[in-house]
Amino acid sequence: MERIELHGCAGGRQEVWKHRSEVLNCEMRFGIFLPAAATRGEPCPVVYWLSGLTCTEQNFITKAGAQAHAAHHGVIVVAPDTSPRGEGVADDSAYDLGQGAGFYVNATQAPWAAHYRMQDYVALELPALVDAHFATNGQRGIMGHSMGGHGALITALRHPGRYQSVSAFSPIVAPSQVPWGVKALTAYLGPDPDAWAEWDAVALIAKASERLPLLVDQGEADEFLATQLRPELLEQACQAVGHPLTLRRQPGYDHSYYFIATFLGDHFAHHAKALTA
Amino acid sequence: MERIELHGCAGGRQEVWKHRSEVLNCEMRFGIFLPAAATRGEPCPVVYWLSGLTCTEQNFITKAGAQAHAAHHGVIVVAPDTSPRGEGVADDSAYDLGQGAGFYVNATQAPWAAHYRMQDYVALELPALVDAHFATNGQRGIMGHSMGGHGALITALRHPGRYQSVSAFSPIVAPSQVPWGVKALTAYLGPDPDAWAEWDAVALIAKASERLPLLVDQGEADEFLATQLRPELLEQACQAVGHPLTLRRQPGYDHSYYFIATFLGDHFAHHAKALTA
Repeated sequence: MERIELHGCAGGRQEVWKHRSEVLNCEMRFGIFLPAAATRGEPCPVVYWLSGLTCTEQNFITKAGAQAHAAHHGVIVVAPDTSPRGEGVADDSAYDLGQGAGFYVNATQAPWAAHYRMQDYVALELPALVDAHFATNGQRGIMGHSMGGHGALITALRHPGRYQSVSAFSPIVAPSQVPWGVKALTAYLGPDPDAWAEWDAVALIAKASERLPLLVDQGEADEFLATQLRPELLEQACQAVGHPLTLRRQPGYDHSYYFIATFLGDHFAHHAKALTA
Repeated sequence: MERIELHGCAGGRQEVWKHRSEVLNCEMRFGIFLPAAATRGEPCPVVYWLSGLTCTEQNFITKAGAQAHAAHHGVIVVAPDTSPRGEGVADDSAYDLGQGAGFYVNATQAPWAAHYRMQDYVALELPALVDAHFATNGQRGIMGHSMGGHGALITALRHPGRYQSVSAFSPIVAPSQVPWGVKALTAYLGPDPDAWAEWDAVALIAKASERLPLLVDQGEADEFLATQLRPELLEQACQAVGHPLTLRRQPGYDHSYYFIATFLGDHFAHHAKALTA
């Protein structure tokens, strides 16, 4: 594991590391913000951020203004890449499949199955690596945007007890029912929709054994709202089983980091309440 | 003038506009953040941000987290590009000359003089355009980073009474005495150092008719500190004539936007104190 960036930021340090991933069988990068306490070796909670389509580990750490909030609450923030990477890794010319578009699933289909195991990477391998190398205290939250909002929701839902808090911006709540998701799940998991249900937040909510409260922000001027995101499906799924959901529809906000930056402080407060109680 | 981006942000709007510049004789873009009051037509002060080498109008608006601070204080923020642009505009293959490196001067030498009049653009043409199209109240501040920190200092010093506040991050305080500046000023203004003095903050301080207080932040881990920035020269120039300067040396911070984002709230408070008094 090698540190390739180090910047003073918000009284702590923003770093970028690269490492060999066993799960993904390629070299990966992740960003990590260490608040002042963590730089002194004092154990802190960790919030994982999962980014959206086309992003790398850079987008969130450079555009969201997360460090000031994380410093305020004393939490570490880890931002991984969105897929396996490299010349030997399968890819597609479209922006919504292959590198940059891992969808946080474990692929079962050729040519993807050899590397695309992002769920095991973000839920298991990366947290183990972070816990081994940094001052963490075992408390974990997870959040993300768009494809990464989907990732945050399914990762928390698939691992009851592993995360104390979860939230999402503009998540793809039901990939089985929208074009981005159908395309990706068909490629990574095959054409049978039965195989998709365990990677679909709306489907997972119905059978969840843990009712971890969800905070979701959705811009009403989001260009993908009606076709790809469809928050009403999450609302209905939560209502049907009594899963706690705070869904905020924000007038005038689109799908960009300007939206994320505006409401990110509320999300950090939501996580900190659970993680630093 | 045409709006090419519009995003809800921090309760207001982040926009990007393009327009034909008469001064620069090319098409230019600028970012503008309008706090909620300005979107309702209530006149607000304007803070101008001048970016550093290689930047466009995008860097500051996407990376600094400025909008939350501007919203808090109720100020408009305008972020222009760093040089004239386009196929017909002279350029150089180096990153520190030509497009992306206008140095906020009015060039007198071929081939630059035809377009490179960034000082008149940022100090005169752009504010006139902003005042004509947006809800401004005539109060103005100016700040910037690196080459843009130099730009902010010289623009305020060259136009007494025009700005009520000024500040800079990691400014090139004495371009006449450092490699970046000597290269650019030689190209744009010719080889005679006498022609450079009116574009050099340290030289301008000595004869300033207005003693506008300067706030300057400088990272001590900045890779350009000793060779290009040399804040001690500004400190000495201010001490010699009693020009008010708050120079903060920040341990562990480098030249990046992580540094700017960390201390930008203090700069907005400095400007707001003068602009909204």
